[in-house]
Amino acid sequence: MTKKELFENIKRKQSFLCVGLDTDIKKIPPHLLEDEDPVFAFNRAVIDATADYCVAYKPNLAFYEGHGISGWQSLIKTIEYIKTHYPDQFIIADGKRGDIGNTSSLYAKAFFGTMDVDAITVAPYMGQDSVAPFLSYQGKWVILLALTSNKGASDFQLTEDIHGERLFEKVLHVSQQWGNDENMMYVVGATQGQMFEAVRRIVPDHFLLVPGIGAQGGSLEEVCRYGMNDYCGLLVNSSRAIIYVDTTEQFAKKAGEAATDIKNEMADILTFKEIIK
Amino acid sequence: MTKKELFENIKRKQSFLCVGLDTDIKKIPPHLLEDEDPVFAFNRAVIDATADYCVAYKPNLAFYEGHGISGWQSLIKTIEYIKTHYPDQFIIADGKRGDIGNTSSLYAKAFFGTMDVDAITVAPYMGQDSVAPFLSYQGKWVILLALTSNKGASDFQLTEDIHGERLFEKVLHVSQQWGNDENMMYVVGATQGQMFEAVRRIVPDHFLLVPGIGAQGGSLEEVCRYGMNDYCGLLVNSSRAIIYVDTTEQFAKKAGEAATDIKNEMADILTFKEIIK
Repeated sequence: MTKKELFENIKRKQSFLCVGLDTDIKKIPPHLLEDEDPVFAFNRAVIDATADYCVAYKPNLAFYEGHGISGWQSLIKTIEYIKTHYPDQFIIADGKRGDIGNTSSLYAKAFFGTMDVDAITVAPYMGQDSVAPFLSYQGKWVILLALTSNKGASDFQLTEDIHGERLFEKVLHVSQQWGNDENMMYVVGATQGQMFEAVRRIVPDHFLLVPGIGAQGGSLEEVCRYGMNDYCGLLVNSSRAIIYVDTTEQFAKKAGEAATDIKNEMADILTFKEIIK
Repeated sequence: MTKKELFENIKRKQSFLCVGLDTDIKKIPPHLLEDEDPVFAFNRAVIDATADYCVAYKPNLAFYEGHGISGWQSLIKTIEYIKTHYPDQFIIADGKRGDIGNTSSLYAKAFFGTMDVDAITVAPYMGQDSVAPFLSYQGKWVILLALTSNKGASDFQLTEDIHGERLFEKVLHVSQQWGNDENMMYVVGATQGQMFEAVRRIVPDHFLLVPGIGAQGGSLEEVCRYGMNDYCGLLVNSSRAIIYVDTTEQFAKKAGEAATDIKNEMADILTFKEIIK
C-alpha cells in the first residue's frame, strides 16, 4: 500500500485507528474455546465488528508464536481473512525483528513474501544492514522503533550523545538515509506526549505508529496535538481497550462499539485539523 | 543449565564452540531434499557429527520462521532431538526478541516454557521491562545484544553519551542491575577485536556469546586474547564455516571435521590459558 492510498483510506473512513490483535487465549470469551481454532474465531469476529472503523490491523507476533505451530496457523488464517475480506486494511506484523543482513532478508521474505503483510516492526539497535533487507520490497513498509511506550524506553532511548542528540532522535535522523516516508514509519509511544514535537522536528512527513493509548495510559488528544501532520501521519493503535472490552457472547459487538467511539473521536480531530470536511 | 555446569562442560570437552544452525534449505545437500523434513534431516546429521566437539547449539529462528509452519516443526524437532540425545548441550534460541513487558512474557513462556531452551537472544533497545520477563525463569539465560558483529553495529552501538560512555557500554553497565552473571550473557561480535577489552572492563565475569568468526571474518585468537576470563567466559559461534563446508553426501563428516579443527584450536587456547591441563 502506498502512503497516498493509506491517507485516502483514512479520509474515507474518518479514522486512523489500528486495532491491535494481541489475542490471548486466556482472555477470550469462554464459549469460543469450543471452536477448532479459538484464536482465529475471536480475531474473525473482532475484525468483522471493527473493520468499518479502522484502517489497520496489527497482530502482535508474540501472542501467536507463544502457541507454537497452532499459533502460527491462527496468525496465517487471520492475515488471509483480512486480505480476502478487507483488502483495504493495512496489516502490520508486530515482531520487532532485526538481525544481520542475511538473517533480516529471511524475515523480510517470510513476512513480505509468504505472508504478504504491508509492514513489519523492526528494532534499530543493529543498524543499517539489519533494516535494509526489509526496504527492498516495493509497496512494503518498515516501522522502526524510535521512542517506545514502555517504562524501559528511558533506559537507552533518551540517552543524549555528545552533541545533545538523544538516541531516539539519532535513530530518526540516521535512518532517513536508509529509506524515506514512502517505505518507513516510526513507532512513537502515546505515553510520550510532548516528545512528539521533537519527533516531528526530525520526521515531519513520516507516518508514526502510535501504541499506548487505552490500557497503557496515553492520550489521543495529546498525540494528535503534537504529532498530526497535513496527511494525518498517525496510525494510533489500541489493543486491549477494544478487543477485551467485554468477555461475554457480546464481545464482538462491544469491541465494535469501542472502536466506533475511538473512530468518532478521530473524525472530530480530523475535521478540526481540516483534513476532512 | 548453571554457569558452573557450562564451565564443567567446556573443560570436559575442551571446547567452547557453539554451532549455529542457520539451516537454509537452498544450501543443504540436494539428496536431503527427498526427505520428509530436509531441514531436520540436515540438522540431525550435523548435530550427530559435531556434538562431541561443541558445547552449544544456536538455531537462528529466522531460518525456521521463514518457512512458516513447516519451519517451526523443523525447529521444534531439532530442539527435541538435541535435548533427547545430547542433554549436556546448551541450546540458544537466536531470535533477538524484545517487546513491552506483557509481550516479552509471552516470548519467554514460548521459549523457556514450551520449547525449554536454555537461552534466548534479546535486543536491549526497549529497556528493562522488555528484558525482565526472561529473567524470571530459574536456570535460563538472557543473552543481550551489546556489540554485534555486523557493519551496522557502528550506527548506534558506538555512539558516545555526554560522559563518553558508548551505547554498548551503557547496555552492559545498566543491564547489570537487571540480572547477573548466572542468568545473563552478552552478544559481542568477533569482528570487534580489541573492543573485548572495553567489554571485559565492565563485565569481567559474564559469559559472552561471540558470533562472527569464519564467514564474517573475526579471529578466534584475538577474541580469546582480549575476551577470555578464568571461567573461559566465551561461547564462540560458527555457523556457515561448519554446516556448509561441504554440500555432497559427505557434508556431515566434513562438518564434524570443521568442528574438530576449531575444537582443537580451542583446546590449545584453554591449555595455554591454564584453564585445562
